[in-house]
This record gives sequence, C-alpha cells and structure tokens, in this order.
Amino acid sequence: MRVEIWSDIACPWCYVGKARFEKALAAFPHHDAVEVVHRSFELDPGRAEGDVEPVVTMLTRKYGMSPAQAEAGEDNLGRLAAAEGLDYRTRGRDHGSTFAMHRLLHFAKEHGRQDELLQILYRANFAEERSVYSEGAERLVELAAEAGLDTDAARRVLADPTAYADDVRADEREAAQLGATGVPFFVLDRKYGVSGAQPAEVFTQALTQAWGERPPLRLIEQRQDEADACGPDGCAVPRG
Amino acid sequence: MRVEIWSDIACPWCYVGKARFEKALAAFPHHDAVEVVHRSFELDPGRAEGDVEPVVTMLTRKYGMSPAQAEAGEDNLGRLAAAEGLDYRTRGRDHGSTFAMHRLLHFAKEHGRQDELLQILYRANFAEERSVYSEGAERLVELAAEAGLDTDAARRVLADPTAYADDVRADEREAAQLGATGVPFFVLDRKYGVSGAQPAEVFTQALTQAWGERPPLRLIEQRQDEADACGPDGCAVPRG
Repeated sequence: MRVEIWSDIACPWCYVGKARFEKALAAFPHHDAVEVVHRSFELDPGRAEGDVEPVVTMLTRKYGMSPAQAEAGEDNLGRLAAAEGLDYRTRGRDHGSTFAMHRLLHFAKEHGRQDELLQILYRANFAEERSVYSEGAERLVELAAEAGLDTDAARRVLADPTAYADDVRADEREAAQLGATGVPFFVLDRKYGVSGAQPAEVFTQALTQAWGERPPLRLIEQRQDEADACGPDGCAVPRG
Repeated sequence: MRVEIWSDIACPWCYVGKARFEKALAAFPHHDAVEVVHRSFELDPGRAEGDVEPVVTMLTRKYGMSPAQAEAGEDNLGRLAAAEGLDYRTRGRDHGSTFAMHRLLHFAKEHGRQDELLQILYRANFAEERSVYSEGAERLVELAAEAGLDTDAARRVLADPTAYADDVRADEREAAQLGATGVPFFVLDRKYGVSGAQPAEVFTQALTQAWGERPPLRLIEQRQDEADACGPDGCAVPRG
C-alpha cells in the first residue's frame, strides 16, 4: 500500500500532521507493507526566493490578524506540537519561499533520503533559532548533509533553479487534479484522501479501510494457453 | 499510476518482456505519470552463491530436455530477443544464484538507479561473454559502477549477505500473495496483473484500462467543520 503526503515545509499543520500520521502508521499491523512518499505543495508559490519576513508580520499583513491573534495562534500550535513530542518556536520564526527546499526534497527522494530531509527541514523551520530562509543555500546544504546527502551534489541542485523544478510543479498539478486545496493532504493508494492534520485515530481508520478494500488482482491475459514466462519448473519453450 | 514488475535476472522472458513493456510505455500518452518499480523474484532460490553451471547443462539436468532441445530453445529466445533489439548469446551462458544481484538492485533502488542496474545486469547475463556468476563480487561492483552507483558502497553491500536480504524476501512473499507463480509478472496500481512477456499491445491495453479505471478519490473525514490544514488563504486557527 502506498501513502502520498502533500505538504509544505512552512505549514505548521503539516509538521503536526506528519507526527500524527506516523503514530498511526507505527501501530498499524501492516506498516511494513506501507510505502510513504512525500509530495510538494507550496502555500505561497508566488513568493520570491529572497523575500523573507517574520511569520507574525506575514499573518497580520496578509490575513488581517491582530498581532495578539497571530501570537495566540502560534502559542496554540506550539501546544499542539508539544503534544506530539515536537519542538516549536512560537516567537521569532521567519516566513519565505520553500521552492528550493521542495527541489531539494526531490533530489533527496532520488537518493532514498526524502523522509529524513523533510523531518530535518521541518525541525529547522519550526524549532531552530537560525532561519531556514535568510541564510541562503549554504544553510540548506548543511541540512542536506545531515540527511546523509552529498554536499557537492546538493550545492549543485540549489545553484540551478531549474533542477527538479518540474518535479515540484508536477506534484502541485497532481494535488490540484486530486482536489487538494490545502495541506497536509494524504492519499492512500490513490483511492482514499485525508485532508488536514487529523487525529491519529482518523489515520488508523483510513489505513485500515484502504488495506481492507485493496481489490483482488485482475489478470489481463492475451490468450488461454501458457504465457511466455519462467517459473520454478523452467521457462516456457518459445514458439520459434 | 504505478507498475511493479517482478522478475529475475536469469529469466530470459523477463529480459524480453521488459523491452516489450517499455515499448508500450513509451507510446502510452500518460507515460510521464507512470512510475515503474522492479521487484525481486528468484527462479532458483535454493541455489548456493558459488554453484554455477552452463545453462544448457542446467536445462538438461533439471528439466530433462535433450541438449538439442535446450539449444533450440536458446536459439528461439535469441530470435525473439533480437526482434526487440536485444543482444542474446545463445551458447555458453552460465546459470547461478541471483540473490546477490537482487540485493544490489534494492541498494540501487535506494539511490534511484534500479532500472539502470537491472538493464545492465540483463545485458551482462544474456549478452556478454564474461559470466556474471563466476567472477565473484568484483564483477558486480563493476556493473554497479556502470549504473552510476558508488563502488565502495556496492562492495560493502555485496560483502554483507544480510544487506537488503529482507527486501528481496519481502518482494518474494508479496509475489506469492499476489498469486504470481512465474515471472515476469506485471502489476498495475495493485489492481491489474499481466503474467508473462506478452506482446506490447497487451501492455498497451493493460495501461489504458488501468488508467481509465482509476477510481475517484474518496475523502475520509472526521468532522464536518474545517480541518486542521493550511491553504492559500492561511492556516486553520488552532482550537487551543
């Protein structure tokens, strides 16, 4: 079974939702048979690379919250993150473009390190004092190295704005096709969707339902006689 | 859409079937949205690592063919391979354990090089004079390097017989659960199965059918009110 998770590094509900999903997955009896793939989704796709501002400024400017409302929201998110065992800096975080990080996540996927890098980027964005947006590519190269990726290769990816850009855009198009308007968005075997950082029990229910309803395999066969295949008793003899 | 292909490096129908499938896939209008994953299947799982014999000897000894029958079969396979543009040495090939190669394919998968390595192993096994079985690990290290893998890391994988062994076994268990008794065995979105090296048109039909019948996504939702998610208009405000 395969679970695809659309998310953005800048999305606090994605950070919390990933932990809730992983709690459900760890307790799911068939978790060894579940493959998790992370997909890209930018909440703020129009933002330029170097355009960085404090989260609270962005919330008040863009969504018309008062500073007190914005800070109260951050405090609540901090409590919900703590309930999942996650660190969360409720004051002083930055907001910026996540496009380069999504490109880097696709590079990491090619090297089997996508989940590691995403967790490291979340932690860097939500829990660490250093900004993941304002220190430039070298900060991301450091984080890539932490995820076990080659630093020179990561540096080359970050230096070339077209590297893996199509993969990011393809994920975003697919999210739209699947009807996702926000993140996190979880898709199980392309059959069931779960929207938002639902409680672990909802993920347990979704995993159980999707697992139980896996359809039996339907064989598409060209002819009734033996197919051109090899088995434990030898290979079909070719009709010359 | 995802296509999983169970195969063995020692299986001539897998070599031919991969080329036929790829012909169909290249002409499939949605090929960019198709992900191909290779899965392990050993035709001769009981064979020890160093136990190598000529293919024709194995065919006569194990399946009771006459040498002339075995050679005629190889000649026919050579013609069918040539029809797909593949080289095939009809005389002098070896047979042996493919377990180490399957372990190496799982290592390659982690580094995004699985398809490249499988094609290289097929060519080494079916088309090259040097035996892929009797020269030991260093021959496989060379082939891994050709696929773009790190030679030291490949050497470490091959030196440790437990490395990726569970992944090979898990693929084989899954093949049995899906009802595959021989290879190649193609599974589309875990919904349709195609057994054997069918003509390209059968793969085209299977791809078309599986694509057309992708189910619409069913949303599993916990509650009617807004989920804890972030969208272009901001994030849901947490209920403290």
